Amino acid sequence: MSKMQAAVLYGPNDLRVVETEIPVPAEEEVLVRVKACAICGTDPEIIAHGWPNCPPYGSFIPGHEFAGEVVALGPKVTEFKIGDRIVAEPHKGCGKCINCIRGLYTTCLNYGNIEKGHRHYGFTVNGGYAEYVAIHINCLHKIPESISYEEGTIATAAGTALYGIERAGWIWPGEIVAVVGPGPIGLMAAQLAKVFGASKVILIGTRNSRLEVGKKIGADITINVKEENLNNRIEEITNNIGVDFTVEASGSQDGAVQAVDITKKSGRISLIGMYKEDVKIDLNHVVQYNMTMAGGKAEGMWCIERVIPLMADGRINVKPLITHKFPLKDINEGVKTFKERIGGALKVVIEP
Amino acid sequence: MSKMQAAVLYGPNDLRVVETEIPVPAEEEVLVRVKACAICGTDPEIIAHGWPNCPPYGSFIPGHEFAGEVVALGPKVTEFKIGDRIVAEPHKGCGKCINCIRGLYTTCLNYGNIEKGHRHYGFTVNGGYAEYVAIHINCLHKIPESISYEEGTIATAAGTALYGIERAGWIWPGEIVAVVGPGPIGLMAAQLAKVFGASKVILIGTRNSRLEVGKKIGADITINVKEENLNNRIEEITNNIGVDFTVEASGSQDGAVQAVDITKKSGRISLIGMYKEDVKIDLNHVVQYNMTMAGGKAEGMWCIERVIPLMADGRINVKPLITHKFPLKDINEGVKTFKERIGGALKVVIEP
Amino acid sequence: MSKMQAAVLYGPNDLRVVETEIPVPAEEEVLVRVKACAICGTDPEIIAHGWPNCPPYGSFIPGHEFAGEVVALGPKVTEFKIGDRIVAEPHKGCGKCINCIRGLYTTCLNYGNIEKGHRHYGFTVNGGYAEYVAIHINCLHKIPESISYEEGTIATAAGTALYGIERAGWIWPGEIVAVVGPGPIGLMAAQLAKVFGASKVILIGTRNSRLEVGKKIGADITINVKEENLNNRIEEITNNIGVDFTVEASGSQDGAVQAVDITKKSGRISLIGMYKEDVKIDLNHVVQYNMTMAGGKAEGMWCIERVIPLMADGRINVKPLITHKFPLKDINEGVKTFKERIGGALKVVIEP
Amino acid sequence: MSKMQAAVLYGPNDLRVVETEIPVPAEEEVLVRVKACAICGTDPEIIAHGWPNCPPYGSFIPGHEFAGEVVALGPKVTEFKIGDRIVAEPHKGCGKCINCIRGLYTTCLNYGNIEKGHRHYGFTVNGGYAEYVAIHINCLHKIPESISYEEGTIATAAGTALYGIERAGWIWPGEIVAVVGPGPIGLMAAQLAKVFGASKVILIGTRNSRLEVGKKIGADITINVKEENLNNRIEEITNNIGVDFTVEASGSQDGAVQAVDITKKSGRISLIGMYKEDVKIDLNHVVQYNMTMAGGKAEGMWCIERVIPLMADGRINVKPLITHKFPLKDINEGVKTFKERIGGALKVVIEP
Repeated sequence: MSKMQAAVLYGPNDLRVVETEIPVPAEEEVLVRVKACAICGTDPEIIAHGWPNCPPYGSFIPGHEFAGEVVALGPKVTEFKIGDRIVAEPHKGCGKCINCIRGLYTTCLNYGNIEKGHRHYGFTVNGGYAEYVAIHINCLHKIPESISYEEGTIATAAGTALYGIERAGWIWPGEIVAVVGPGPIGLMAAQLAKVFGASKVILIGTRNSRLEVGKKIGADITINVKEENLNNRIEEITNNIGVDFTVEASGSQDGAVQAVDITKKSGRISLIGMYKEDVKIDLNHVVQYNMTMAGGKAEGMWCIERVIPLMADGRINVKPLITHKFPLKDINEGVKTFKERIGGALKVVIEP
Repeated sequence: MSKMQAAVLYGPNDLRVVETEIPVPAEEEVLVRVKACAICGTDPEIIAHGWPNCPPYGSFIPGHEFAGEVVALGPKVTEFKIGDRIVAEPHKGCGKCINCIRGLYTTCLNYGNIEKGHRHYGFTVNGGYAEYVAIHINCLHKIPESISYEEGTIATAAGTALYGIERAGWIWPGEIVAVVGPGPIGLMAAQLAKVFGASKVILIGTRNSRLEVGKKIGADITINVKEENLNNRIEEITNNIGVDFTVEASGSQDGAVQAVDITKKSGRISLIGMYKEDVKIDLNHVVQYNMTMAGGKAEGMWCIERVIPLMADGRINVKPLITHKFPLKDINEGVKTFKERIGGALKVVIEP
Repeated sequence: MSKMQAAVLYGPNDLRVVETEIPVPAEEEVLVRVKACAICGTDPEIIAHGWPNCPPYGSFIPGHEFAGEVVALGPKVTEFKIGDRIVAEPHKGCGKCINCIRGLYTTCLNYGNIEKGHRHYGFTVNGGYAEYVAIHINCLHKIPESISYEEGTIATAAGTALYGIERAGWIWPGEIVAVVGPGPIGLMAAQLAKVFGASKVILIGTRNSRLEVGKKIGADITINVKEENLNNRIEEITNNIGVDFTVEASGSQDGAVQAVDITKKSGRISLIGMYKEDVKIDLNHVVQYNMTMAGGKAEGMWCIERVIPLMADGRINVKPLITHKFPLKDINEGVKTFKERIGGALKVVIEP
Repeated sequence: MSKMQAAVLYGPNDLRVVETEIPVPAEEEVLVRVKACAICGTDPEIIAHGWPNCPPYGSFIPGHEFAGEVVALGPKVTEFKIGDRIVAEPHKGCGKCINCIRGLYTTCLNYGNIEKGHRHYGFTVNGGYAEYVAIHINCLHKIPESISYEEGTIATAAGTALYGIERAGWIWPGEIVAVVGPGPIGLMAAQLAKVFGASKVILIGTRNSRLEVGKKIGADITINVKEENLNNRIEEITNNIGVDFTVEASGSQDGAVQAVDITKKSGRISLIGMYKEDVKIDLNHVVQYNMTMAGGKAEGMWCIERVIPLMADGRINVKPLITHKFPLKDINEGVKTFKERIGGALKVVIEP
């Protein structure tokens, strides 16, 4: 048995489920039987346009938020054994550049250079929309039975939120935290804020359906900026001081402006949204208010490993985010559901 | 003798040198005989428009970058003695709000509230364009004989540059540092970068005259963006990696864009310019490159105290920045010289 | 009515409950009607020996972990109003020294200098073993109705634990944390570790009764070093790696050695115990293992303010720590109960 | 030509210069023609006792502070070319454990495990007391012509001092810094303190000869603790406050006590000495003074790369440290000279 089903990208917006070779794990790699792979906001972009340094059309398998079971070990692997339940981490640094050496592997200076050892699963090498993936041991994190495979796929979003928070200097216990943008990463940030000991978590958005999910997973206050005056509400909640820590996860012009507006003097802003265009902000406010704004690139510093214990004992609850599931053969329907937010889609999980 | 000469603001752009009362130092204050007071970029704004919570027109004496001699002590002062040579720090926090208590006094939450103990000399209380100032001991830093009074006035600019660098996570030895904007604060930042052990300091601007001053005070490389392609030069200098640490001191749209453009993956940007308008930047680049952008508000964390030893032994050289001096009676000519950059004016010092 | 009952220290171990003057709140002070004041480990020392710079015998009222109600305002107080429920913070910095200015007020360089504005309530100025205390507004933190006064007295222990954790670089989510010494501060540290998102909290001690309290407030694993081999257990729990973050709260020779022994390479140790003698440790291990050891002096950085929201909503539960209560008149019995750990005494609260 | 001269350890204190095979560089390795290799304090220990996981006697070549020229490239090497001048870094992490992934490779959890990719040149794999070494590219740092090979060997000591300073939170400009122990690493720390902008650097020791070298390389004040009362001098120099940052590089009981004694409230101590026995210190002082004590393991975070620009332009001067040179054939005499400090030996360089 050497064949598997996989979703292969044949060209722009031409993703086909076909039979293809099961990959063979190389040194320090394992073979994973993928059980679930969530669709990320970047996936529709990849499907539409490919990705710099991606494998050639006709052989490229996207998908980077996946969980599964170890079924074979490549040479020199002792860290995992067959049967281990794992979630994948998409980024593997080259291990040689100054950023990797200093622990900043999501900003590897050899990005996309396979020869130098860099891997970005589902982007520059094949990923998880397939029955099997061969993946480096640096990119695997064991999960206990208390985390289902479909829940495991959300660890990437949780890890990204956590890294973003780390980058901007952590949330300190007792702080008031705002999260702008109640998408999957924003919702995980809201939960993590509470885990960190935030006194109040304020979730800010434009869609009541998503804000409702926020309430379920622990946001103390939700604000729909289309219905309420944001600045007035924040002044009221914070006694005119502003919030201590803001996570900007919307990736929008409005969200960026709101984040700067509501943050207190000497407050911190974590930027983890993806902006499609340049953003116009009041940078003078950032200076005069002595703010820190830190961009957080993906789920660095092994943040996925760190969210797993929190998922395992229920301190982080990812279930309310998973709104849809599709078998691999229906992946294009899954992508459409995700893109068009059909049925209030938040996270859509593919099950190969 | 209870009268002194001072430049009093009588209304928008109506600054007059008049005779007025010598202030009496209150508890924990000293009386300083001002010997030199430099004009800061905010001064023309203050003269033109006043300042929120400033003293009433007809009594308001601006000026916040001054040095002088202690000539009288208010009650309870043991930290200073008559004859001490000092430079002033403009900001005194209230000492009661959460920011002050945590050491962030330049972002005091009681800004402008005299009753609560906040002071911003030359802004919300009287400052240094006068023969005498009464000033709180928290705002005084002793200088040795090796620092002249006129040099001492530059300690505020140096302290602001230092605080901006601290806010963005320090410069680490061996790093490549870029400074955008060769005004007084940028020029101090360039010198400080070298003090911190930067391997190369790149000064970026649009005026060759100021870039020349940069060379004198230690910039290794200067780039005039009107004459050279900035990104090409940076790629060449940094082997296509980008600079480790960028100080954005221009306060301009172009400078902000340049700072984001030239900074490496996981690099840091210190924002210490004053932007007159909103700025349009590629925030996605900040996220994808995992950058830190920190605004630095004034000369916090007693940074003035820390630059003095460096000025005293010549590791920081402020002389090339002082281009003009005027007696107090000619202050309006001094302000004009500064504003219109007459004769290549950089720092203009008033001597009361 | 100008008289109150207070426990006044008349000499070594001569604490008497007597009638004395109700203090008058000075500028920026309020008068607090003390409702509860917990006995701290330093109190028996103070009662036995006095304290450097304490008020003279015959007038010195100790007690520094207290909660109560605001009943009168001194001049210039707008931050509080009569009827506010508060907990006190013992340390007020001078606000003038370099440590205070940088936010490090528990290490004020003017410690004990009343003239310069320093206060250490219950140590260098009168404290809470009295019906009334006059106290500076910087040292007050409002508590909601959901925190009883007796619970409020534990905020100091919680704040000290939190500051110790902050000093050693925070606990990161998912980390394994050990706490050595299950006294009141250690027990708070264990709870806070869980609040921070620790994956496992290991509580280490020599008394099963206290370890049992630890289990009640959330320790995942307890180890009695008299009954089990500590290093073996830690190797087993951490897969031979060691713990990420250790809080040494025992203040003992053995505890210090254990903390160094069990911490992983590049791990962090927070030192918040009070050592009565010099301690012999393997400092080479600290170097070779690249460890950080940070001493944490009291409840700095307004940590008390930050634990209150966590106490208010039950994320921190202080009830199991309060084992005994005595009226003020029986304070000496309370102190004896605390010192001799009669009836398993943990925190003993005096109610004036 | 496949043979080379090398110093091979045949047993305890049995180091022989013999002919042996020139190693062949594997993937990602280069072959270096060693031009100079300095003797480190650990070398006599290694020669006397071997090292955990070292190569078998009869094949083990020690030496880990070396510089040389790249003469051959293993497969996949594009980062270096033949003719490059380099200094070596002894530590290569496995790249897979959580410490390596987070940039803490000198505390790799797979230390000594060759199979997992860890290397410690001169300790667990062969090093630089030979004409040739095969070494991984992560462990090479290019040096310009302005750094001689013998000077290059001191980059390891400089990098260790720098990492120690980084670990304890950097030196901030204007701070007063003390270095205890004027051995090679202490002397480099003293120079680096000045590079960082220290206002005063105080070098503390017991040998006037070494303190004299300290003066040559920039220490502002030297204190011989056998001739002067250390605490009195520090009080005098620091106005009774203590030093801001102390580097403990002596590795002695006395040095550790002195470091704790002289450091100010909220000061920082960098521990980079090697202690042969447990050390008895006043840990309560560390707590009450809110001190940070950080162990620094070797030259992590690519600190060697960062000191090179400082060596290249003379901001760090290593020449005064190099007191003796021997050809490889006389290595045993070199080791004896170093161990017994014959002729005031500081750094002894072997030239293969």
